[in-house]
Amino acid sequence: MVVVMRERATEDEIQNVVSCLVDMGYDVHRSTGAARTVIGAVGGGRKGDPGLLEVLDGVHEVVRITEPYKLASRTFKPEDTVITVDDLRIGGDEVVVMAGPCSAESEQQVMATAAAVKRGGAKILRGGAFKPRSSPYSFQGLGEQGLTLLRAAADAHDLKLVSEVMDVGQIDLVGRYAHILQVGARNMQNFTLLRELGKARQPVLLKRGISATIEEWLLSAEYILAGGNTEVMLCERGIRTFESYTRNTLDISAIPVVKTLSHLPVFVDPSHGTGRRDKVAAMARAAVAAGADGLIIEVHCDPDKALSDGAQSLFPGQFDRLMAELRIIAPAIGRSICVEPVVRRGWGA
Amino acid sequence: MVVVMRERATEDEIQNVVSCLVDMGYDVHRSTGAARTVIGAVGGGRKGDPGLLEVLDGVHEVVRITEPYKLASRTFKPEDTVITVDDLRIGGDEVVVMAGPCSAESEQQVMATAAAVKRGGAKILRGGAFKPRSSPYSFQGLGEQGLTLLRAAADAHDLKLVSEVMDVGQIDLVGRYAHILQVGARNMQNFTLLRELGKARQPVLLKRGISATIEEWLLSAEYILAGGNTEVMLCERGIRTFESYTRNTLDISAIPVVKTLSHLPVFVDPSHGTGRRDKVAAMARAAVAAGADGLIIEVHCDPDKALSDGAQSLFPGQFDRLMAELRIIAPAIGRSICVEPVVRRGWGA
Amino acid sequence: MVVVMRERATEDEIQNVVSCLVDMGYDVHRSTGAARTVIGAVGGGRKGDPGLLEVLDGVHEVVRITEPYKLASRTFKPEDTVITVDDLRIGGDEVVVMAGPCSAESEQQVMATAAAVKRGGAKILRGGAFKPRSSPYSFQGLGEQGLTLLRAAADAHDLKLVSEVMDVGQIDLVGRYAHILQVGARNMQNFTLLRELGKARQPVLLKRGISATIEEWLLSAEYILAGGNTEVMLCERGIRTFESYTRNTLDISAIPVVKTLSHLPVFVDPSHGTGRRDKVAAMARAAVAAGADGLIIEVHCDPDKALSDGAQSLFPGQFDRLMAELRIIAPAIGRSICVEPVVRRGWGA
Amino acid sequence: MVVVMRERATEDEIQNVVSCLVDMGYDVHRSTGAARTVIGAVGGGRKGDPGLLEVLDGVHEVVRITEPYKLASRTFKPEDTVITVDDLRIGGDEVVVMAGPCSAESEQQVMATAAAVKRGGAKILRGGAFKPRSSPYSFQGLGEQGLTLLRAAADAHDLKLVSEVMDVGQIDLVGRYAHILQVGARNMQNFTLLRELGKARQPVLLKRGISATIEEWLLSAEYILAGGNTEVMLCERGIRTFESYTRNTLDISAIPVVKTLSHLPVFVDPSHGTGRRDKVAAMARAAVAAGADGLIIEVHCDPDKALSDGAQSLFPGQFDRLMAELRIIAPAIGRSICVEPVVRRGWGA
Repeated sequence: MVVVMRERATEDEIQNVVSCLVDMGYDVHRSTGAARTVIGAVGGGRKGDPGLLEVLDGVHEVVRITEPYKLASRTFKPEDTVITVDDLRIGGDEVVVMAGPCSAESEQQVMATAAAVKRGGAKILRGGAFKPRSSPYSFQGLGEQGLTLLRAAADAHDLKLVSEVMDVGQIDLVGRYAHILQVGARNMQNFTLLRELGKARQPVLLKRGISATIEEWLLSAEYILAGGNTEVMLCERGIRTFESYTRNTLDISAIPVVKTLSHLPVFVDPSHGTGRRDKVAAMARAAVAAGADGLIIEVHCDPDKALSDGAQSLFPGQFDRLMAELRIIAPAIGRSICVEPVVRRGWGA
Repeated sequence: MVVVMRERATEDEIQNVVSCLVDMGYDVHRSTGAARTVIGAVGGGRKGDPGLLEVLDGVHEVVRITEPYKLASRTFKPEDTVITVDDLRIGGDEVVVMAGPCSAESEQQVMATAAAVKRGGAKILRGGAFKPRSSPYSFQGLGEQGLTLLRAAADAHDLKLVSEVMDVGQIDLVGRYAHILQVGARNMQNFTLLRELGKARQPVLLKRGISATIEEWLLSAEYILAGGNTEVMLCERGIRTFESYTRNTLDISAIPVVKTLSHLPVFVDPSHGTGRRDKVAAMARAAVAAGADGLIIEVHCDPDKALSDGAQSLFPGQFDRLMAELRIIAPAIGRSICVEPVVRRGWGA
Repeated sequence: MVVVMRERATEDEIQNVVSCLVDMGYDVHRSTGAARTVIGAVGGGRKGDPGLLEVLDGVHEVVRITEPYKLASRTFKPEDTVITVDDLRIGGDEVVVMAGPCSAESEQQVMATAAAVKRGGAKILRGGAFKPRSSPYSFQGLGEQGLTLLRAAADAHDLKLVSEVMDVGQIDLVGRYAHILQVGARNMQNFTLLRELGKARQPVLLKRGISATIEEWLLSAEYILAGGNTEVMLCERGIRTFESYTRNTLDISAIPVVKTLSHLPVFVDPSHGTGRRDKVAAMARAAVAAGADGLIIEVHCDPDKALSDGAQSLFPGQFDRLMAELRIIAPAIGRSICVEPVVRRGWGA
Repeated sequence: MVVVMRERATEDEIQNVVSCLVDMGYDVHRSTGAARTVIGAVGGGRKGDPGLLEVLDGVHEVVRITEPYKLASRTFKPEDTVITVDDLRIGGDEVVVMAGPCSAESEQQVMATAAAVKRGGAKILRGGAFKPRSSPYSFQGLGEQGLTLLRAAADAHDLKLVSEVMDVGQIDLVGRYAHILQVGARNMQNFTLLRELGKARQPVLLKRGISATIEEWLLSAEYILAGGNTEVMLCERGIRTFESYTRNTLDISAIPVVKTLSHLPVFVDPSHGTGRRDKVAAMARAAVAAGADGLIIEVHCDPDKALSDGAQSLFPGQFDRLMAELRIIAPAIGRSICVEPVVRRGWGA
């Protein structure tokens, strides 16, 4: 921590700050310049609330110098984290694609969509059974029945399954069906949920809150890591800005930033990040070009009939074309995508 | 809903949109101008996902025209909602002040602070027993012991108690001690929690999420109202903007906006809204001047020793002075504040 | 400046940073802790670009500790700046109100509006002759003819005049008519214009850019002050946020913040800050309660016929009621407003 | 325009809105539903201020349905605009790269940097002679001498030159040296400047303001187009959001959005968009993958000695590597980059 004193701070004010820092357990170094004094506090000290220093007399500014997260940082673990789900490696050389419908709606819909995303090259099926909706009057998901359908479709097509848990009470249930547990953007700071997921023994896909800073996002990951679950993937899905043409502003720059700060794999969700089908492919390409470890994309066998998020779901043919583009881009950053593509048999949009 | 077609939309595209709207159960009116066609959809229709219309061929823009909330709107209930807790009326002529520490820390601290806020004119004691913290390494609250201390202090000083519930599992426990259940900003879209609070028989203070639009905030209130609990108070506590000098930007303009859109009482939290003790009074005055129904303010008997939020907690003497200023301002908008002030007996900061 | 090194920074990296700082002319103090090293740089040094330090090897973060503005800061000048225009004092005990139409449209309109705002208690007439409009197809103002009308109306009602300059080429012209030169939000970082206004001998009202931080705003004031013009008033007029219900979010918290950081008077424009007539009064009251030195409000003798900004212009009767409310609020913060109100003669809305 | 009436609007209120619309010259269509009335206004009508409708009694919401820009829109001109500068085509199949120093500092620096960017594959040299700086105390550029140096270096390496104009008074001067005139982000709504550039006969690169919506950006382009200058390129350079880790948030999604709305070429500036050298390459790749027509990148022969923006300037070797990556990516979207690369002769970073 660095405490910058006001230009006219008195010696008494300076001494008071030094005392407080010593009480908090810090080693204190004082730099006195012509205009002002700067106090460096390093080492131990976690007693008391550093925020209090800001309102001490004579203090101009307090600058924190340790990131508050530890386990999530590259300082703690310099090498990339690779998460394995059976034979699938996430965070390694291959860019991994999760794809599927917003919600499970019917056996036919789930099965047809799973077939389509498998053909395109996805390795993981996405799909929701419990849906967080802004309005209490919207479709809320099929519940356990949805999970059953999703897992059956995943198994039938040799895909893994990722699905959302909205609440502590759903962890066991969703965990019985899904290989990866997803935390939605609105729950990124549901600390009770994060804490329980720290005890789970399944990978977690942690979406960034719509207005979360990167630091807050990594702190939420820290909650899970601190509980003992080391398999956390981060997922950028758009932040809220003044621009309203797109539903959110997909923060592509978060990819290189997080890769510098943390060792955890970073995914991008271009479907929620744009909210419009015709913008998904461009943003998916941008994400891979910027270094994302994976994508999560909404695809529906018949988007125009979808009960939710149809407007941002790709047609299967659009997904195929996108995957072909991504296979060209990935080598630019020394990566591959869908290394063993399924042979395609005249399947179109 | 109004669907605006592109200037060059074909007749087939227009007919397709009309068919979709009819299928969704709307009455459709078509306006054809020199440059483009506009289609109005009124009445019934809640089948299907209106978002889908946006990606139909030939569509320029889709404009929703019914607010998605009903019970929370002034259209549904034109007169102000007044919530009573015993003899205390919230949302009426009197501006009601909730005050107290961020967290319960000790019997002495809770009791001394309750005495101080009572003297200043507060009617409700605020205080947390379960604290949502961005970092897993910060102080997390005293739990039920904290609730016991808070209720005892409230009772001893003839105050009501408001305290936060972070999770469905805490509703019963907190509800046994607190008169009013608070939902924190990070839980504003924890829909599972909101739904359960709809079944509670206690008033709820619903804080605005840090990046929630006013519409989303009212929709979250709708979750509670739709469950049968009609006693919801809203609380503005600062939104996240590009300006970083203050921790958040307290959105004072939300007060007149919400008073127009909704019948629910509106509170303001100038403590979290600014994050700095020396800015709290100015913003508290502004909130009352703009028409807030109440305030929730952090006060601590010894802020420099607080375990959390000390930097934004007022000293008791500062709270007294603020209340005196508010008593001057309230009549400008035809209201009063703390109509029966306790006689003060030489008590200072 | 404080340079925080990474936890694993090498001694060579640390020495390199120290050398750079010495080359820039700083006195350097080094604090070595168990986990990392912090380097304090105080005193002289303005050679080179401090931004470069951020990308040196081993550097974690660079923290600037001197505000880049000097003349605008309270450190430089602790007492409030009071600007006088003839017998009118701005920034003193009285809250000063500027009011009038968005644009001068006709002699009748300007004269009638000036009469109305004078009756309500305004001391300064506002009105534009050159209008910055987002669209090239909107009404652009009457030019010099507008200035003539505005000044005649101001003189006829013993008001001062404030009017906007959009370009260096307009300074002389506008300056011949207006007592105070206004810089609009879109020109807050038109540095050529600011530099020229530094040579002007008239007070300047500098509006905050729609997305300007408070620091950038004060730096823009610094441009004018550094040119030798010490009479700068700041004007908050709303910032751009994610909330779209109001046109902008009026940042009331900027008032106490700027009053702490700077000695310059602070005005608030609740008309542009909300964009809607029915929200203006609430925000004007909030601004005065939060400590603003003045207000600038759009009033029109017949808003429904205004050529621009009619929707946010008050009717004269609304302005009168607002001024009456403000007279109740001002004493709460030890101020007055319109100390010599004109006798009102049965004049209504 | 569509005017949505409140649910309880009276017949008189509805008739009043209809009358106003007719007075403004619109054809009016009325849709009456069970709950509310919607009024569609199409055709002619540009009399009066549509904003006024919002505050009429009984009005719930007014929705504008014509984009206020015309010449910049794809509706007006469906095919892509291709701008030619001698034999260079901008907006065609080739992705065009502009590169060079932030500012001209010396003959040696300009010449060495021009050589480096030419070798990497840039077609246009960028460099400033007049610098807009937030602080009046920062380096402000070499003026005409800088332009002389830049043009000489461009000519020596068969590059075109783009340079910034900050003010109407600089258009002629900069235009004598530069092939393309750049408008900086802070001047995006300097309407006087835009209007004059409409009379220029040189292409203009119009940067997006730091908080400009895409609509406002296109309206600013409209100012130039409406003046008769049809050669406008747009340049995304980062928007201001709550995230402060990067200086700005580069809005990659603006690329596909603008390509849909407008026919004008879209450039991206990853240097200002991130503010840090180590994030530039990732964002440049993302921009090309998302469909940008070109890039403008800061490169310096010796960034650590740069007088401005050194921290975000690439070393020549970094630029070379980036261009090699872009050559892999461009074909994914059916484009090429630097089709005739200069033979490289053992030139490294």
